[in-house]
Amino acid sequence: MSNTFGTLFRITTFGESHGPGIGVVIDGCPAGLAVEVADIQAALDRRRPGQSDLTTPRKEADQVEVLSGIFQGYTTGTPIGLFIRNQDQASHDYSHIEHAYRPSHADYTYDQKYGRRDYRGGGRSSARETAARVAAGAVAQKLLEQHGIQVSSYVSQVGAVQVPVGYEALDLNLIESNPVRCPHPETAERMAELIRQTRDRHDTVGGVVTGVAKGVPVGLGEPVFDRLHAELGHAMLSINAVKGFEYGSGFSGVLLFGSEHNDEFYRDEADQVRTRTNHSGGIQGGISNGQDIYFRVAFKPVATILQPQKTLNNQGEEITLAGKGRHDPCVLPRAVPIVDAMTNLVLADMLLRARSNKA
Amino acid sequence: MSNTFGTLFRITTFGESHGPGIGVVIDGCPAGLAVEVADIQAALDRRRPGQSDLTTPRKEADQVEVLSGIFQGYTTGTPIGLFIRNQDQASHDYSHIEHAYRPSHADYTYDQKYGRRDYRGGGRSSARETAARVAAGAVAQKLLEQHGIQVSSYVSQVGAVQVPVGYEALDLNLIESNPVRCPHPETAERMAELIRQTRDRHDTVGGVVTGVAKGVPVGLGEPVFDRLHAELGHAMLSINAVKGFEYGSGFSGVLLFGSEHNDEFYRDEADQVRTRTNHSGGIQGGISNGQDIYFRVAFKPVATILQPQKTLNNQGEEITLAGKGRHDPCVLPRAVPIVDAMTNLVLADMLLRARSNKA
Amino acid sequence: MSNTFGTLFRITTFGESHGPGIGVVIDGCPAGLAVEVADIQAALDRRRPGQSDLTTPRKEADQVEVLSGIFQGYTTGTPIGLFIRNQDQASHDYSHIEHAYRPSHADYTYDQKYGRRDYRGGGRSSARETAARVAAGAVAQKLLEQHGIQVSSYVSQVGAVQVPVGYEALDLNLIESNPVRCPHPETAERMAELIRQTRDRHDTVGGVVTGVAKGVPVGLGEPVFDRLHAELGHAMLSINAVKGFEYGSGFSGVLLFGSEHNDEFYRDEADQVRTRTNHSGGIQGGISNGQDIYFRVAFKPVATILQPQKTLNNQGEEITLAGKGRHDPCVLPRAVPIVDAMTNLVLADMLLRARSNKA
Amino acid sequence: MSNTFGTLFRITTFGESHGPGIGVVIDGCPAGLAVEVADIQAALDRRRPGQSDLTTPRKEADQVEVLSGIFQGYTTGTPIGLFIRNQDQASHDYSHIEHAYRPSHADYTYDQKYGRRDYRGGGRSSARETAARVAAGAVAQKLLEQHGIQVSSYVSQVGAVQVPVGYEALDLNLIESNPVRCPHPETAERMAELIRQTRDRHDTVGGVVTGVAKGVPVGLGEPVFDRLHAELGHAMLSINAVKGFEYGSGFSGVLLFGSEHNDEFYRDEADQVRTRTNHSGGIQGGISNGQDIYFRVAFKPVATILQPQKTLNNQGEEITLAGKGRHDPCVLPRAVPIVDAMTNLVLADMLLRARSNKA
Repeated sequence: MSNTFGTLFRITTFGESHGPGIGVVIDGCPAGLAVEVADIQAALDRRRPGQSDLTTPRKEADQVEVLSGIFQGYTTGTPIGLFIRNQDQASHDYSHIEHAYRPSHADYTYDQKYGRRDYRGGGRSSARETAARVAAGAVAQKLLEQHGIQVSSYVSQVGAVQVPVGYEALDLNLIESNPVRCPHPETAERMAELIRQTRDRHDTVGGVVTGVAKGVPVGLGEPVFDRLHAELGHAMLSINAVKGFEYGSGFSGVLLFGSEHNDEFYRDEADQVRTRTNHSGGIQGGISNGQDIYFRVAFKPVATILQPQKTLNNQGEEITLAGKGRHDPCVLPRAVPIVDAMTNLVLADMLLRARSNKA
Repeated sequence: MSNTFGTLFRITTFGESHGPGIGVVIDGCPAGLAVEVADIQAALDRRRPGQSDLTTPRKEADQVEVLSGIFQGYTTGTPIGLFIRNQDQASHDYSHIEHAYRPSHADYTYDQKYGRRDYRGGGRSSARETAARVAAGAVAQKLLEQHGIQVSSYVSQVGAVQVPVGYEALDLNLIESNPVRCPHPETAERMAELIRQTRDRHDTVGGVVTGVAKGVPVGLGEPVFDRLHAELGHAMLSINAVKGFEYGSGFSGVLLFGSEHNDEFYRDEADQVRTRTNHSGGIQGGISNGQDIYFRVAFKPVATILQPQKTLNNQGEEITLAGKGRHDPCVLPRAVPIVDAMTNLVLADMLLRARSNKA
Repeated sequence: MSNTFGTLFRITTFGESHGPGIGVVIDGCPAGLAVEVADIQAALDRRRPGQSDLTTPRKEADQVEVLSGIFQGYTTGTPIGLFIRNQDQASHDYSHIEHAYRPSHADYTYDQKYGRRDYRGGGRSSARETAARVAAGAVAQKLLEQHGIQVSSYVSQVGAVQVPVGYEALDLNLIESNPVRCPHPETAERMAELIRQTRDRHDTVGGVVTGVAKGVPVGLGEPVFDRLHAELGHAMLSINAVKGFEYGSGFSGVLLFGSEHNDEFYRDEADQVRTRTNHSGGIQGGISNGQDIYFRVAFKPVATILQPQKTLNNQGEEITLAGKGRHDPCVLPRAVPIVDAMTNLVLADMLLRARSNKA
Repeated sequence: MSNTFGTLFRITTFGESHGPGIGVVIDGCPAGLAVEVADIQAALDRRRPGQSDLTTPRKEADQVEVLSGIFQGYTTGTPIGLFIRNQDQASHDYSHIEHAYRPSHADYTYDQKYGRRDYRGGGRSSARETAARVAAGAVAQKLLEQHGIQVSSYVSQVGAVQVPVGYEALDLNLIESNPVRCPHPETAERMAELIRQTRDRHDTVGGVVTGVAKGVPVGLGEPVFDRLHAELGHAMLSINAVKGFEYGSGFSGVLLFGSEHNDEFYRDEADQVRTRTNHSGGIQGGISNGQDIYFRVAFKPVATILQPQKTLNNQGEEITLAGKGRHDPCVLPRAVPIVDAMTNLVLADMLLRARSNKA
């Protein structure tokens, strides 16, 4: 098990979907950051289930309690403990999956690896664990704000419905203007429509979240192994249901020749060093170069579908299983604050690590 | 700087392109593995420059010296030091890039981050560093062989030229049958042709390496942060020129509905638990499920092109720069052993980590 | 801040003396250990204040809540969250030390390092943090029991009052037979008397805890830096008020010549390899050799004394300060379960790490 | 195996006593430090065998080669590889210990743990490994010099011969004035005499090194687990033959009452916060307080003695064994540069870690 992420700004998460709750300890957050419980709660509210008809109706207030590390409104340099009690966990019956291996879930692999598992709601493998990340990400964001860094993620694709333009052509202030969290209103409506249709067919659909970080100073990223994009990729691939990560030109950069792909340096009117194009996605040699950082994260369709599926139980017997209860037909809208949080965490860690660059 | 990769099977690399050489220390390799220098040398020979007319003619014998950790043909559990002296480093003039920031290279970011850099041949940011990874990967492979794991990577795309079928339809024994390292001979020829045309135009071209691991036992991968695919993604994104990583259905999985994407479990004739499809790419909940693991890694076109480009020098002055010397028009063929090595290293680490699963 | 200890069996503690509580997350505990809340509570009860007239009368029930990681009585391989709410924290007035730097406390150094601190009861620097370690140590002990390892610490010295014989001559079952936790009843009484006299003089007194681990298998310890005794030393020196650590012959071994100090190997009646003497303290080359491990830990007298002392406040002004409230005149009796816990944690970690010794 | 030490200023050592050589990779050294090969060589020359008639006559030039990370006289922020070739390794016959378990050596434990070992000269368990630490420590010292920190260790005890005064009463400039490295000339002579007598009796003798660090700024040390003294203790206990560590008042502090032991704060003439006594050894709450740091390290007598001893071989048979070749009758004089080096490394690491204290 590895439930710690980060080198200097480090989080350790714990908790299961249907145990007492979900928590996180942040170790290494510098002292002197002004952090209010309300800041953390606001981030959690964006991830909370039941926000619109596009997400699961599971009811969780997701009230965060600060257990340590914040005193009189400021971080003290000591570990910050945050805990979110589960409320809705007792009311459902999970006996139908106690012995079943749900297709494309983690039931089989956890059982094989550990010999036992908390099967209720997926236990530790549930995406409910990401609530802890979102809470921690809200603290990291406070450090980023001090450095003028702004992270904005949005839904850029649901199934085959795609935003037709790049992030530079969008008004990222519109992300929260609709329940899909897509800043291209027209596309957002088509996405919402697809999600509703999918839900009504008792099916699920995947998509892509695009992440953007503006104002990142030059110099973040730790070659050769902890290049900035390698840490971002690791962070994103650690989120439930993620199948791919690309930054800058990504997979489509393969189609360009070097003479097309290279980003020429120039000085702008303010005498700042900039690049004319940004196929590099703001990162060169694994280190931020001061341009916008952008990347894309692929989410598969949620594995829990309300249709009968054939599978095996833990005796190796073939069974037919249908999802019960309340599930997201599409996780993309709720994935946005998670991508934000993980981006915040990586950048906060890299800000601290960069303090050792020079003697 | 972070030059260490892995948790229990850990490598630390060092060395610059034009310094004394490139090295690696492997810490945590279990005792009792039979390792010959020839095994390591064979891996290095696959990565070595000058293998065919598709790669750089830079001449490096890449002879490895074992500095420690192997005694009488076996690993002893002590750290294994490997060193590859640079031979060709003194003969060239790099003064034209001493003060220049080559487009899409790491010159600018290293200079800003560290205040100074070894500019000769890119110094530490050169892909020559990957020789150390390949050497270490050959040792990791010995551990994998003990467990019946086999890693095979190949070039599946160069520019727009793609292998038209999935890895399951290919004979992976053909990878070494041509200098492109593409096991689909017909496509390999078209790729070679594209690389030669690109080289003759003094340009460069990117591509995709597909990685495949067969025989991986159930249970590798450490949720929640070190999911097997997150470690693989981190490893691949730490390789020079990589822009994206996807596994299983990857970005194209976004287009499927949950009912199409889910992999149903069944028992095969040998009474083994298997899945009918493998959109999961052999990994569920971040843990290997015993099916084939497969993934794709996007490489951008090499940044060094033998054409004049506009850029800045470290005084902020606009200059025109053209690559000199001997460079790869396409790194894909030489990237294959690097992807193999990083896959070996991740799997070896995960094999050791999985030893703590159960009491 | 570094609030994580251990490599594979890792704990992260959090919480302040007078905040909501003290907690710990154990990451890496193998699945399948039978752990009852009562096991953890029993360990905490040994460390709890107010056990006898020799310790602080602060009232803390120290009730532990399991937040995650244990399901149906067994560990699941997921992180184990434990939390102990503070009960007695609100009732006292700490304004007299808000701006004062108590002599030989951490007030000054925390203030300088972090720019602010939770001054109530010492905040994070309070020994109350060790409750979290004791809770975690009780879980580690379950793993040790599986391997037949038994850890027993006891008070071997208070001030100048010393147990006159070595651990081998003692019945370690008597440790809990008196409130001092000294298995030599006669000496225990003299220690108790010294502690009471010291308390009545409003002073404090230090001492030594001797730790013993029996049944440790050959092979634990990870040279060259994580030698078993180096990890034990690190663990002990991380406990509040500890000033020194020695193992085996320790500082007194300096007085022996090599010909006297060396431990000759022989085979005993049961054909086991043993040593005739054990100046090595059960560890050779940093690795356990199967003999008893024993070590000594020096604790300074508690810094809080109920006498007026001259010191400075955070304005640099000279002030006179006297301890208030309820404090331990001697921490030694309550230090015993903490030394036990840290020993358990080190050995559990080393047991897991040793699983990677051989291929 | 754990051959890495440090968190941000990290070293990884490799190499065996009679293999090709001993090396180290320093990762995390900030860029911009002026480092000459001569600086490193000077430190190695202090540790080198054969310096006087008090040490082993083994002949090793211990010439260091810089493999990477230093360019044009400055560190570049990339990993620094250093290598020292063994010269004297081939000339001796070690067949007498190939199958023998030397008393109080690591032969038995290495064999049991790893199943095999390089037996020549102790292989990895030889103190020759510390050459790598000394080389790395010389680089760390460059960082300390920038911050005005000065580390001075000396031999304060050999057998029963002790320096009669504390470090404050000594002129530490005299450390190098005699081959014992004891700055109290009279005692140094008595120590030298004892060492020669011991050597002539074919025996060995232990002793104590006292370490002193002056000029350490307030704020180094990372509670709760990586307290400054816990890291120092870990570092010292990782050196061959070390049996104990104490700092400040150490084990003798146990004999003081709190009212005697506490260090009162005051302002000196220069308006600096100071303490009137320094039983704390310059560290409070695990964090440096600006006063001198001092500690003591106990070394056992060297295990190799040139006298016959009874022991076992790897078949479990009783044999008689006598040390052959050239060995130190007392390691203390050569231990001084090793204690210096480990102190430098801990302080350099803590300097970098302290950069994250505040937002």
